[in-house]
Amino acid sequence: MLDDHVTLAHGNGGRFMRELIDEVFARHLANPALDTHLDAAALALPAGMVAVITTDAFTVQPLEFPGGDIGSLAVNGTVNDLAVSGAEPRYLALDAIIEEGLEMARLERIVAGLARAAREAGVAVVAGDTKVVPRGNGGGLYLATTGVGVRPPQRRLGMDLIRAGDAVLVSGPVGDHGIAVMLAREAFDLSGPVASDCAAVTPLAAAIWDMEGLRFMRDPTRGGLATVAHEIAFAARKTVRLMESAIPVRDAVRSVCRMLGYDPYYLACEGRVVAVAAPRAAEQILALWHALPGGEQACAIGTIADGRPAVVLETEIGGERFLEELEDDPLPRIC
Amino acid sequence: MLDDHVTLAHGNGGRFMRELIDEVFARHLANPALDTHLDAAALALPAGMVAVITTDAFTVQPLEFPGGDIGSLAVNGTVNDLAVSGAEPRYLALDAIIEEGLEMARLERIVAGLARAAREAGVAVVAGDTKVVPRGNGGGLYLATTGVGVRPPQRRLGMDLIRAGDAVLVSGPVGDHGIAVMLAREAFDLSGPVASDCAAVTPLAAAIWDMEGLRFMRDPTRGGLATVAHEIAFAARKTVRLMESAIPVRDAVRSVCRMLGYDPYYLACEGRVVAVAAPRAAEQILALWHALPGGEQACAIGTIADGRPAVVLETEIGGERFLEELEDDPLPRIC
Repeated sequence: MLDDHVTLAHGNGGRFMRELIDEVFARHLANPALDTHLDAAALALPAGMVAVITTDAFTVQPLEFPGGDIGSLAVNGTVNDLAVSGAEPRYLALDAIIEEGLEMARLERIVAGLARAAREAGVAVVAGDTKVVPRGNGGGLYLATTGVGVRPPQRRLGMDLIRAGDAVLVSGPVGDHGIAVMLAREAFDLSGPVASDCAAVTPLAAAIWDMEGLRFMRDPTRGGLATVAHEIAFAARKTVRLMESAIPVRDAVRSVCRMLGYDPYYLACEGRVVAVAAPRAAEQILALWHALPGGEQACAIGTIADGRPAVVLETEIGGERFLEELEDDPLPRIC
Repeated sequence: MLDDHVTLAHGNGGRFMRELIDEVFARHLANPALDTHLDAAALALPAGMVAVITTDAFTVQPLEFPGGDIGSLAVNGTVNDLAVSGAEPRYLALDAIIEEGLEMARLERIVAGLARAAREAGVAVVAGDTKVVPRGNGGGLYLATTGVGVRPPQRRLGMDLIRAGDAVLVSGPVGDHGIAVMLAREAFDLSGPVASDCAAVTPLAAAIWDMEGLRFMRDPTRGGLATVAHEIAFAARKTVRLMESAIPVRDAVRSVCRMLGYDPYYLACEGRVVAVAAPRAAEQILALWHALPGGEQACAIGTIADGRPAVVLETEIGGERFLEELEDDPLPRIC
């Protein structure tokens, strides 16, 4: 029988921790490769494939928000890093740092959300650890997820492949996650609620990752589209030109941004892909994405041009402004 | 130029975060497989070997203590889980959740300690993530490390192999880490300072992991020797009999335990191995361990007996007491 709230004893390595792990984590995350009595789990990796690894920590506030929670975010954030690198996500390792006093029912909802996201993304949680920190030493719950995926050795994507004339694409509207979390945090009374786009992008990535002419993919999370564009500009030593009129932003996101002075291009997405591709491939990618769930509103939003490394936004009224590298964080702790 | 203290802007995905990662993390952790511009890193895994994964979160207080710090602890704790499972540790993924206000010099000392431990253990940090949480939402620094190692497919250790008559061994004195952290936390004025045993046990594990008659290894961390003995007793459905007179405990640890009412058998070690082996193998293991650094004081400390699942301590004065499963945590946050 579990307590109503997490206590320090749930982190001590003894009976309470065993019960927490068995009754909350193992019950929801059960899969053939998860054995909570082992220190290390074997990974079944197909011969001839390259194994790749990625890791992320999650400190989002609040822990639950429209469209997701810290559990589904932790799964999808890590799965998406694998998918955009060209790898099929297979396994997750999960660390939970729980603050004393967290409601057990809330923890269980979040672990259930995590388990559901893992099933949907086709990944098995095979290793984990929990720690409990005293009240006042954590934000309720922090998660860290490490993902392992596999890709064929010949599949190679990278910012070094980007050429002048390439097109910049995005798989859907930007800024939903950032605004959804912000609205859940503050008691704003704004109409047109926005849900996070939190989702695995594996189907969007897998549809195109062997396409001739695809150069690079990235999921625009912390720092948003503008930050990915910056990384591209500086790594490729090119100018990234984005067309404001082409970048999809939901009306509700746009109006919250106007009201509160946010720039949607710097807000996090958690279920979008930014791709750079040769022009012919770009057309094919958009056609493929439009037919997939989550890709219906995919757009070509800009081009790569010779010139100094910078991100230039061609505004709707015909002007230009630079999207500078992010300094002040408009919305901390959105992932 | 970095600030003196970590600020929220160091976690925002923009320039400050890039500088923190480049100047603190990447500089110390540099290795050929670490590219901070990639979302996912490729793992070079030899053909024919089984890849294994393990993960741990670390919330130790204080962050630095005699014999180690949260950085070296995070490396060794994860490396040791791989080593005792029979796998050679190869790669680490690292997540850092940093509290706003942490002194940059302290963070850098800890990352340097982490890098040193990784070099000593022969593992490369190939993926990472940092998040910054507002002041009052973290204990200075939390780390999560995920380790990937490789083992030959025929190497199999497990509690299910344990038989009545097997010997229980420990590679060195128990409780050092727990007492070292406790003394560093409180302003005790106790003579005979104790240093943590924090170290990679890979050499101790590798010396014996293909030995005929070795059944099982485990590093006795949270919950200590008694907790490992408990897991063995319940998984193998046997009685674990430990001899108090044979269990190595340093005098300084013993006297602190007497003074403060701790039981050393429940205190964490971070550089010890508990092994279960057939009697003949046990003798060979002790001979091998005695010749290795960190194994000089290895001892046979008990036996596996038919009987109900329990841990029985034969006391020095000829009595018996049960070592029950841990309920109250004597020393929270020691790892």
